[in-house]
Amino acid sequence: MDLTTVTGLTEALLAGNRRALARVISHIENNTDLARPLLAALYPHAGQAHIIGVTGSPGTGKSTLVNALTQVYRQQGLTVGIIAIDPTSPFSGGALLGDRVRMRDLAGDPGVFIRSMATRGSLGGLAQATADVIMVLDAAGFERIIIETVGVGQSEVEIASAAYTTVVVEAPGLGDEVQAIKAGVLEIADIFAVNKADREGVDRTVMALKMMLSLGVPEKFQVMHHGRMLPVEIPQARQDASAWTPPIIKTIATSGQGAKELVDAIENHRLYLEQSGGRLWRDRLRAATELRMILRDYLLENLLARTPPEALQAAIEAVARRDIDPYTAVQRLVEEVGVEVTAH
Amino acid sequence: MDLTTVTGLTEALLAGNRRALARVISHIENNTDLARPLLAALYPHAGQAHIIGVTGSPGTGKSTLVNALTQVYRQQGLTVGIIAIDPTSPFSGGALLGDRVRMRDLAGDPGVFIRSMATRGSLGGLAQATADVIMVLDAAGFERIIIETVGVGQSEVEIASAAYTTVVVEAPGLGDEVQAIKAGVLEIADIFAVNKADREGVDRTVMALKMMLSLGVPEKFQVMHHGRMLPVEIPQARQDASAWTPPIIKTIATSGQGAKELVDAIENHRLYLEQSGGRLWRDRLRAATELRMILRDYLLENLLARTPPEALQAAIEAVARRDIDPYTAVQRLVEEVGVEVTAH
Repeated sequence: MDLTTVTGLTEALLAGNRRALARVISHIENNTDLARPLLAALYPHAGQAHIIGVTGSPGTGKSTLVNALTQVYRQQGLTVGIIAIDPTSPFSGGALLGDRVRMRDLAGDPGVFIRSMATRGSLGGLAQATADVIMVLDAAGFERIIIETVGVGQSEVEIASAAYTTVVVEAPGLGDEVQAIKAGVLEIADIFAVNKADREGVDRTVMALKMMLSLGVPEKFQVMHHGRMLPVEIPQARQDASAWTPPIIKTIATSGQGAKELVDAIENHRLYLEQSGGRLWRDRLRAATELRMILRDYLLENLLARTPPEALQAAIEAVARRDIDPYTAVQRLVEEVGVEVTAH
Repeated sequence: MDLTTVTGLTEALLAGNRRALARVISHIENNTDLARPLLAALYPHAGQAHIIGVTGSPGTGKSTLVNALTQVYRQQGLTVGIIAIDPTSPFSGGALLGDRVRMRDLAGDPGVFIRSMATRGSLGGLAQATADVIMVLDAAGFERIIIETVGVGQSEVEIASAAYTTVVVEAPGLGDEVQAIKAGVLEIADIFAVNKADREGVDRTVMALKMMLSLGVPEKFQVMHHGRMLPVEIPQARQDASAWTPPIIKTIATSGQGAKELVDAIENHRLYLEQSGGRLWRDRLRAATELRMILRDYLLENLLARTPPEALQAAIEAVARRDIDPYTAVQRLVEEVGVEVTAH
């Protein structure tokens, strides 16, 4: 097999070749000339996997929990792809530690594939690259794909929009409960895992979550629709989605306790989505988000490629010195370079 | 004064009218017709404030520390604007709690202005809105502007690019040190605050930070330059910037201990930036980032406004059903609607 061509790589990847898989992902991460043809070739082969987002604050034990989940899935005979969105600095050694733990538990199992992706390359690039790598693992035949994100910020919400089922991990003792249960997690959580359930305060954390949920679950993914999102209208599915109340599962990831229950909850949610039409709804939402991100970048690159570097530098200089506000500078830049959009 | 016109609002704001300030911010947050004219009118009046980013994981006590910092600045006679980037769900009550604490300590002081901004309205909208509100507070004459962000994700790094001085808050006991010192904070930290310094483990946290720093501070803001950022070349300032080693300040925000030392460190960094040319460098970086964000949104909105809704819906449908990959769909959409960019 020729692993230097689109056809060769595609065929090898679809046949289960792990070296081909790793190469394809590298092409995507480095945005080589082969990246887009590969994505186009693989895209029709994806769409079978169940995609699971696992997110939570640092210190909740997410990585260990992902390992425990993976082991349960493997016992059930399902293959698992893991994408760890890793904001760790190369200087802190955090990634290394996490990877070592992973390697010990999951090393040598051909039914598991682990890939770390860094949050470098800012401004939307990561969310799109993650979506692309998920698609590739899906096409490669992994039946469950777990995306692990540290933190609960805005970008995590974006990345979560790629998942069908989002697990929010909490843990007792991370400041007061109110602190731990922040970040609009209600809007993105399909399931809560209260990890480190052998610690003091676990019942308070569970109780706080229950109280929040009893106040009423807000409409899911409203946050995604808000603002300048492409229009997606799926009122029926939305109605159905509000019928799901996130279960709260206690886990002790280090011993594996609760991992089976968490997998059961995930699989229940998967079935629920399929039966309610929620899966199609999320597919449309994902498609709308991806189209928007790609279109935005395409248009920007298209314009920048045609803008003389001096004009750009002059605009940056003028804005930095406050001779002109950035909105006016953009308008002038566009007038100078010329953007004409005409319907055919 | 007529607070319904751009001229009236601008004059009142510059004269210190707080109602005008609140209204201008509302116009920006709601993106009304007055928003851009107001930004253009106020922009030349900004550029005097020192902008301070305060970021860290949930549970580190950031909000309390920001209050303590503000009180020290007020004792020094400086006015303070606070922008809290608040990812709290309206259902969790977290924002309310934070605001109550703030109100108690800082209420009724006309030299302090506090504004919470939510992380709703995803995909870049918040970073730009935050930059705009910072500019408005700056034009309104606030001498120190503090941006508080929860979490240490990708969007926080973007928001941090608006600050001249970024304080990263750590706390002992949030899982192991490696966990706490994640998220590429080295790249964005100008100063470390180890809060809750009366807790066990504080020396280990300080030691871990010192060890990291001794490995060498990576080039600052490299993360910002990476990828598709507009070009900014400021080699001299960059060289100077690497001469700053982030100090580590122990604080106990609840009692105010260490707050004065932290303010001193911030002011030292402010002077350092002015003397080294680093401030101008960051102004250019901020300008480049803002231009990029605004240009990207402008181009997208421009195209979407001219795209028939049926064409968009059809593209979303086709991608959701995997008839076509999103990159190809974008290309077809652009071909259909027509984008012509021509240099004059």
